[in-house]
Amino acid sequence: MGDSALLIIDPYNDFMSKGGKLYDRTKETAEAVGFYDNMRKLIPAVRAAHIQVIIVPHHRWREGDYKGWKHMNPSQILSNKAQNFAAGTWGGEFHPEFGPQEGDIIVLEHWSQSGFANTDLDSQLKQLGIQKIILVGMVANTCIEATARFGMELGYHVTLIRDAIAAFSHEGLHAALEVDGPLFAHAILTTNELLDLLSAES
Amino acid sequence: MGDSALLIIDPYNDFMSKGGKLYDRTKETAEAVGFYDNMRKLIPAVRAAHIQVIIVPHHRWREGDYKGWKHMNPSQILSNKAQNFAAGTWGGEFHPEFGPQEGDIIVLEHWSQSGFANTDLDSQLKQLGIQKIILVGMVANTCIEATARFGMELGYHVTLIRDAIAAFSHEGLHAALEVDGPLFAHAILTTNELLDLLSAES
Amino acid sequence: MGDSALLIIDPYNDFMSKGGKLYDRTKETAEAVGFYDNMRKLIPAVRAAHIQVIIVPHHRWREGDYKGWKHMNPSQILSNKAQNFAAGTWGGEFHPEFGPQEGDIIVLEHWSQSGFANTDLDSQLKQLGIQKIILVGMVANTCIEATARFGMELGYHVTLIRDAIAAFSHEGLHAALEVDGPLFAHAILTTNELLDLLSAES
Amino acid sequence: MGDSALLIIDPYNDFMSKGGKLYDRTKETAEAVGFYDNMRKLIPAVRAAHIQVIIVPHHRWREGDYKGWKHMNPSQILSNKAQNFAAGTWGGEFHPEFGPQEGDIIVLEHWSQSGFANTDLDSQLKQLGIQKIILVGMVANTCIEATARFGMELGYHVTLIRDAIAAFSHEGLHAALEVDGPLFAHAILTTNELLDLLSAES
Repeated sequence: MGDSALLIIDPYNDFMSKGGKLYDRTKETAEAVGFYDNMRKLIPAVRAAHIQVIIVPHHRWREGDYKGWKHMNPSQILSNKAQNFAAGTWGGEFHPEFGPQEGDIIVLEHWSQSGFANTDLDSQLKQLGIQKIILVGMVANTCIEATARFGMELGYHVTLIRDAIAAFSHEGLHAALEVDGPLFAHAILTTNELLDLLSAES
Repeated sequence: MGDSALLIIDPYNDFMSKGGKLYDRTKETAEAVGFYDNMRKLIPAVRAAHIQVIIVPHHRWREGDYKGWKHMNPSQILSNKAQNFAAGTWGGEFHPEFGPQEGDIIVLEHWSQSGFANTDLDSQLKQLGIQKIILVGMVANTCIEATARFGMELGYHVTLIRDAIAAFSHEGLHAALEVDGPLFAHAILTTNELLDLLSAES
Repeated sequence: MGDSALLIIDPYNDFMSKGGKLYDRTKETAEAVGFYDNMRKLIPAVRAAHIQVIIVPHHRWREGDYKGWKHMNPSQILSNKAQNFAAGTWGGEFHPEFGPQEGDIIVLEHWSQSGFANTDLDSQLKQLGIQKIILVGMVANTCIEATARFGMELGYHVTLIRDAIAAFSHEGLHAALEVDGPLFAHAILTTNELLDLLSAES
Repeated sequence: MGDSALLIIDPYNDFMSKGGKLYDRTKETAEAVGFYDNMRKLIPAVRAAHIQVIIVPHHRWREGDYKGWKHMNPSQILSNKAQNFAAGTWGGEFHPEFGPQEGDIIVLEHWSQSGFANTDLDSQLKQLGIQKIILVGMVANTCIEATARFGMELGYHVTLIRDAIAAFSHEGLHAALEVDGPLFAHAILTTNELLDLLSAES
């Protein structure tokens, strides 16, 4: 799996820490799939296997964002109002466990849902010789699905880890992993299935 | 609406004509929303309003496609096996009513699901001064959703016409229009709501 | 010119302020064309005409950049060694006159030569309804030419201001403005020709 | 060199066959560098080394092209007037020796100068696991330079073969290979230097 990278999507306190602005909104699906336990198992195992970890961060809210924009999308309107992941605040800091560590790559912030759109993610992956991406984080049918779909279009092999992804609703999780994912993703695995693959290679 | 274009996604006989390879698979949702009647009302009205029509065609199957590809996605594997929209066959010809007419633009064929990825759609839109795209055609949670999401990421205003879009299942239609669409699309309208907007402007 | 934006490419102290790391290397061509005088005339006139100003900044050097990259290009190797535009230093700060002011947009930093590649420049332009770009700054046959060429490919109308652009050599300036530019740019104007166009519209 | 591909840019009769519309315009530089002899040596050697050959074709002129375009560039205006590489004519057919052979990939036609812009070149390269591109063909400071620059921005390793590239003028060749190329290309080799590398690997 030397040509693979783990993409951790939007590992901010606002999403993944108690007290974060969006923590309660994703809590139900997170608990249902064991999101936090799985992230705690999966990320260290991936690091131990020397697979590159790449942090794919959402745009952090800043004063004056979207100035003059003709057509913000619905997510951006909500996010702007709530000042999600505001730069310079705790909510816009990376989660202490799931955020970057020494040796990780942090790509440019994405303005909307796809971590590839308007960022350096694609060229960073090429520079590192990576052809396969494994996605975990939030949110299933927005940033995860958008990044996965975009990566597939660009020619990457795409794996979703179904129990290390959360959403705002069960329906959102279902849409991404059961309805749409099987049509665009090359693999949809559980955390344990990924760990087994890593063991088999080591 | 002078800065708008209508994108007709994949208007092939294989999708939209009786006897086409995928006609029966989309028939149930098409009938449920009145797809064919709505396309027959909407497209001429859009043309009469001098809104640019752009045909966004899926890759037509050809012998030797995907040669050497390391990671075809699930849709491509199925599509390749079934030889969907095969070049030089009736199924790969445009539907006589919903395909191109004099004055339309036909962009390059897309290999996977997004009409923007790996084609000239974005630059054609810019050259024509178009900032808003209105999507109709097939399939809701694959090519329609992928093109709409990608267009939004690139900075376009995106409108989905909910009853001029069909899918392989009710669940697929629901995922695109009720679960995901409201998070990325700027508007989701019925055919009649679009016609009312056109009337109001004329 | 309401659909135009002025792109100021790489207005850092390292380039445009005495004592900057690259100031002396661009001084000869800058003086030959009257670069600094023209920038001082042109930028305020553009602002007065309510044309959007967009700052297009080169990647600022940071410790650990290019970590693991398989193929840095020659410019990046030099730039990395010299620590050009180092984040947190005076050289990596914007030039006080030619950098951003209230109301400007600052797009994401570009890693190499094109201000469009791996940044949000394209989608910002679309969100602002801009279809024409006017380029000034440095360096003629690297970041200016690369951004201009890329913009043309994406469907933008491209104008180069020939006496508000400098280079590392007369040959570099000549290649961009006399040899290559006439093949890809829609207009190559002097500062005074641009000011005349602005006057004619006001 | 298993992760390399040879890109043959615009190998049309109009460029590379006696009697082609642009043959005489490139003849002087072609003769000066030994273009045709080098292409005849290089291409078979590359094929023998099992390096993937990819044909990167310019847009073929068709009636109605550029319809409604707001800002064609200078090259497109000339090309449209001259009907270069017209579809269905001899000039728009591939050169018998330098065009595609069994096993080659032919990517989508590019509208302007870069073979990456608005085509499937990038995703085809990814699907084939290719990270390094070697460019030969025409024209040095338009399609060759544009494709090379764009490839570098996307994260590819870029090699130009200096004596298997021609131009409309010595100045154009010089700009691409001596002035600009050394700033963006990872290697600029002669045909013999490439052949030596191939021999060393076999």
